[in-house]
Amino acid sequence: MQVDHQEMRPIWFDAKDQTVRVIDQRQLPHALDIMVLDTVDKVVYAIQEMVVRGAPLIGVTGAYGVMVALRTHPDKDGFEQACHRIRQARPTAVNLAWAVDRMLAKIRWDHGHQSCMAQVVEEAGRIAEEEVDNCRRIGEHGARLIAEVSKTKPGPVNVLTHCNAGWLACVEWGTATAPMYVAHEMGLDVHVWVDETRPLNQGARLTAWELGQGGIRHTVITDNAGGHLMQHGLVDLVIVGTDRSTYTGDVANKIGTYLKALAARDNGIPFYVALPSSTFDWHLRDGLAQIPIEERDPDEVRFVQGKAPAGMDQVLITPPDTPVANVAFDVTPARLVTGFITERGICKADAQAVLTLFPEKKKS
Amino acid sequence: MQVDHQEMRPIWFDAKDQTVRVIDQRQLPHALDIMVLDTVDKVVYAIQEMVVRGAPLIGVTGAYGVMVALRTHPDKDGFEQACHRIRQARPTAVNLAWAVDRMLAKIRWDHGHQSCMAQVVEEAGRIAEEEVDNCRRIGEHGARLIAEVSKTKPGPVNVLTHCNAGWLACVEWGTATAPMYVAHEMGLDVHVWVDETRPLNQGARLTAWELGQGGIRHTVITDNAGGHLMQHGLVDLVIVGTDRSTYTGDVANKIGTYLKALAARDNGIPFYVALPSSTFDWHLRDGLAQIPIEERDPDEVRFVQGKAPAGMDQVLITPPDTPVANVAFDVTPARLVTGFITERGICKADAQAVLTLFPEKKKS
Repeated sequence: MQVDHQEMRPIWFDAKDQTVRVIDQRQLPHALDIMVLDTVDKVVYAIQEMVVRGAPLIGVTGAYGVMVALRTHPDKDGFEQACHRIRQARPTAVNLAWAVDRMLAKIRWDHGHQSCMAQVVEEAGRIAEEEVDNCRRIGEHGARLIAEVSKTKPGPVNVLTHCNAGWLACVEWGTATAPMYVAHEMGLDVHVWVDETRPLNQGARLTAWELGQGGIRHTVITDNAGGHLMQHGLVDLVIVGTDRSTYTGDVANKIGTYLKALAARDNGIPFYVALPSSTFDWHLRDGLAQIPIEERDPDEVRFVQGKAPAGMDQVLITPPDTPVANVAFDVTPARLVTGFITERGICKADAQAVLTLFPEKKKS
Repeated sequence: MQVDHQEMRPIWFDAKDQTVRVIDQRQLPHALDIMVLDTVDKVVYAIQEMVVRGAPLIGVTGAYGVMVALRTHPDKDGFEQACHRIRQARPTAVNLAWAVDRMLAKIRWDHGHQSCMAQVVEEAGRIAEEEVDNCRRIGEHGARLIAEVSKTKPGPVNVLTHCNAGWLACVEWGTATAPMYVAHEMGLDVHVWVDETRPLNQGARLTAWELGQGGIRHTVITDNAGGHLMQHGLVDLVIVGTDRSTYTGDVANKIGTYLKALAARDNGIPFYVALPSSTFDWHLRDGLAQIPIEERDPDEVRFVQGKAPAGMDQVLITPPDTPVANVAFDVTPARLVTGFITERGICKADAQAVLTLFPEKKKS
């Protein structure tokens, strides 16, 4: 996507020096810093510390991570341990395990290290390009929802989103943002309410920055505000991403998503979840009971990071010794989800509809 | 209440030098600064800039503000203009207009300035003491709800609250916190989930500090987290305050309250609103349509204030030029409110029940 009118992705493989580079998303929107991932430690650090974040991007980083693991651990045992560490770096997003497993299936030790390296470079690139393609399709399907609303009312179509399910969370287009970008391309008048998304403010920092770069009208709000806006007719559509959704329709996404789904339901507003099929969990049936929910460092809540006059800084909000809980995700039950926007089209959030779109996932 | 084992209130009248003093709540929990309110400009500033906040405390500050206005404006016209400015300083909390009007009703210009001064000092003090008494009674009534839950389960009773409806928002005890303080006195095991309450973090800054000073167990969470906790059985009861409630049961409170009420309803958790009768609006029937909702400076969202190593500082979260909306309150409709906890007891959130408790408010 365009950053200051130059094409950029949040992750890329530099063929010349054979390295993987990522945008350090912790510094956005205040600085555009690039980090080189040339060791497994750095790959794990980048995933855990949220240098990279967002389910599809975590998956692509995991894929390139396997390549880094193979370069730095030419022995099978060391390599497998390294891949295990990458696979476990964060628990909730299913794309990470999915991508690592897909990469591992490409490894043929008997073909020699050089051949394996070529295979993993190619496969990681393929995963990245598939995600780009999936996100573009999600955008095209989802834009139709925005186009439909635009026919029913004057003025902008107001879409509310939570967290950042933008191109920074993917590779291009994003998931939740893809319909907005495509609708904007089509000349539709879109305005996005951006939940700031505490504790790490991915909405206020990343989604606002992305949409600004893309020329899409938007307004940042606190996470508390969406219900009020919905009560007053100021939201036409909610579109969010997801870190893992069961094929039965339950949606794990950034903490607070469930509250917006409740408000959408209470006000008769459609609530859509945009996701590539790599984010479906085809094994779990009960998201609330079965999806592992990450708890993160309480200091992410106690302190807020941002730009101070003298540079990046953080400020303490709470009394210094206050107990804090920092749950990173919640699960929105299928009953509150109007539909899934996938690369193959839009469907209801239930097993029958999802398996009709993805029949190859049906268990015999 | 106790601050470092010394009795303290958020506002007091110093008879010796005839001045009103308040805690500057913007600096808490990092510093305990006191501000003298000796001009009408300072009274208006203190209310608008949230040096003082919380419906009952805004009312008491308005009452003492009338005294300040009388001292500094001995002429009737100047005094009335000054009182009008105080009365309009913030729009949502009904206590402000209520207290100013009650004070004005005490003024007898024909009795002379000195006599009027004595009257307003006495009346402001009476309003403050009445709020103390009301909050204590709210605590006693509300504590019974906590006691009832404690009989049904082992371990602590988990109460979730939003914003700060504590003694800092009142004079003593608080409204939503009063049942917690009284339950704690009774030896019940109470644990409070404290919503941080963006944008100004009154939960993370003030409620956490208050409860810590009072020795009540608590955990700060982001505003996004409450729904997840309720889904997982970790909340037994929600108690919040209110800035204005219609006698028909609609509750204006800090933005985000409505989302918690929805989550409580979705999970079968009682949702109570604690308020003194001074916070009822006896004129409005439809809170959603009729209660004026304040919009505040967008920079309250763009920037977060807190303690940095070198002292108080603020950090910018969003891109610098991002559009922001900052709506300060929302309205929770009566249908989501389990009950009101008032100084006269607990009642349903509907006109009949409220007017049965306060029969003197019935219109003939």
